[in-house]
Amino acid sequence: MTPSLDPASIRAIRIREPGEPEVLEPARIELPPLLPHEVRVRVRASGLNRADLLERRGGHVPQPGTPPGIPGLEYAGVVDAVGAACTLRDVGDPVMGIVGGGGYAEALHVSERETIRVPEGMDLVEAAAIPEAFLTAWDATFRQAGLAPGETLLIHAVGSGVGTAALQLARWAGARVIGTSRTADKLEEARELGLGCAVLTGDESTDWAAEVRAGSPDGRGVDVVLDLVGGGYASRTLETLAQGARWIVVGIPSGREARLDLRGLMMRRASIRGTMLRSRPSEEKAELARSFEDTVLNGFEEGALRPVIDRVFPSEETVEAHRYMESNRNFGKILLAWS
Amino acid sequence: MTPSLDPASIRAIRIREPGEPEVLEPARIELPPLLPHEVRVRVRASGLNRADLLERRGGHVPQPGTPPGIPGLEYAGVVDAVGAACTLRDVGDPVMGIVGGGGYAEALHVSERETIRVPEGMDLVEAAAIPEAFLTAWDATFRQAGLAPGETLLIHAVGSGVGTAALQLARWAGARVIGTSRTADKLEEARELGLGCAVLTGDESTDWAAEVRAGSPDGRGVDVVLDLVGGGYASRTLETLAQGARWIVVGIPSGREARLDLRGLMMRRASIRGTMLRSRPSEEKAELARSFEDTVLNGFEEGALRPVIDRVFPSEETVEAHRYMESNRNFGKILLAWS
Repeated sequence: MTPSLDPASIRAIRIREPGEPEVLEPARIELPPLLPHEVRVRVRASGLNRADLLERRGGHVPQPGTPPGIPGLEYAGVVDAVGAACTLRDVGDPVMGIVGGGGYAEALHVSERETIRVPEGMDLVEAAAIPEAFLTAWDATFRQAGLAPGETLLIHAVGSGVGTAALQLARWAGARVIGTSRTADKLEEARELGLGCAVLTGDESTDWAAEVRAGSPDGRGVDVVLDLVGGGYASRTLETLAQGARWIVVGIPSGREARLDLRGLMMRRASIRGTMLRSRPSEEKAELARSFEDTVLNGFEEGALRPVIDRVFPSEETVEAHRYMESNRNFGKILLAWS
Repeated sequence: MTPSLDPASIRAIRIREPGEPEVLEPARIELPPLLPHEVRVRVRASGLNRADLLERRGGHVPQPGTPPGIPGLEYAGVVDAVGAACTLRDVGDPVMGIVGGGGYAEALHVSERETIRVPEGMDLVEAAAIPEAFLTAWDATFRQAGLAPGETLLIHAVGSGVGTAALQLARWAGARVIGTSRTADKLEEARELGLGCAVLTGDESTDWAAEVRAGSPDGRGVDVVLDLVGGGYASRTLETLAQGARWIVVGIPSGREARLDLRGLMMRRASIRGTMLRSRPSEEKAELARSFEDTVLNGFEEGALRPVIDRVFPSEETVEAHRYMESNRNFGKILLAWS
């Protein structure tokens, strides 16, 4: 029997002060009263995201309604209590999802419509690798950029959590995929997930844009770019675009400033769009979760999609988990498990 | 009685060699055989476009199927002959439209489905001010950027042919308009066409982005940008965008290179798209013309839209017409009339 939770004393990981991984420390928090439309989730595992590193270093705008100082944007677990107005979830339901913060905790409160049921038969720790990666990849690549069967998708940083999710989603949806990485090993691993053309970006002198074009049908360029790299690649990314291409910017670890040739954009009749999940209003996150559950979940249950997990750390080793993420060696997700 | 045309000897304006306006000279051209799906149009007036200036200076990629050395991208006139397979037009029909080149001529051949009927009761010379300006403005602002009633549109260079067309279209469609210009007089004239908020951009030090935001509802920024200016304004244009804004780049006289803050684009979940009419395949131009005729033409016939004409030159004065366009004093279109 799992002992029942005391909402007044929930184990969590807190940022003591902005700094290196060592500023992460265990803490006890008190959950606020459960609202009528919310469920309490007993968290089995929490996913790590690069945004957590920024938050730890102090570069973070706290989201309203999240416990201050507790990072963490995704979870998987079991419903432990339901608010008076809940109709979708019952106690005992396995659920996963994204939150605006507070994910590094053994329990959290979340609007029931923002939860997603865990695919049939999937382990709860594995499920924690799904929400951010697959919601972000699916929303950007399909709902926003409209990737269609037979089209070619370029994924910058194909070995990342979002990259490996987009690769699987695109293959499931009948699209071709070209992926870039600065690490040859990650490209090899991505091939096993269905990557058709792997391009090593190397240092600044590498003309990887020509390689990407050469890897597209008839060399005409790519139809959609899922950009998890940003400014440093922007000029060359523009050169990879086919007529009518849609380029969607999801992450900018290489820098926020891009130099763009507007004439090149016009001649290609191409578009660049920026996107972000975290800042969206609650009703939009709920709609996203509902729609994801109705469609993408089938891909996991059919076996076309699977969470890609690099490593699971016990929650007591969050400091080590952050150090590992900063080393940028992971292929797929890093998770924290709550015992 | 108008004397009938001799297709073997059609008056036109030719570019003798790349250079200043003086290189434009009268010439006689021979039209190729009329194809089954084409009509011959006796041109009453030809519109001038900034692209004609570039072509005259030698910076031009000739479009297939257009008479070499003859500029001109739009016309209005009367159908003079129809090909064997034509079903849409008859001899005597007043039509207007865009062409890939060869518009500075008293006659031209064009696929009948790329022609647009002239609005009821409109003078043929006036009609020549419609095609490029209104097709470009409508396609960019509505078909591509999806401007909706109640939204706010920012038009850079609101005094231009495309700018004045977009302003009228947006007002007809229930949108608010903010317009920029470097010339105070043009802003005054645009107010008479329904411009709600006029912003003088002045020199580089002017913070016109703050003025644009202040002119939008609750200062939240603009929903759509119709950009007829380009690179020089790009960093500030980004600052004017509301959440979910669509920025469409149609002209880049201020320069092709843009510096863009991708983080700003992500936080606004905004998009930038480049577009160009001239390079599109024939079937797309035909679809555009058919759809324009079915919808936008009603605006002219209801009195909500009107061609904005700055000045009409006789075709013998094409050199003067080009000099005048280069002085950038025009508000609305400059036309050449064929007697």
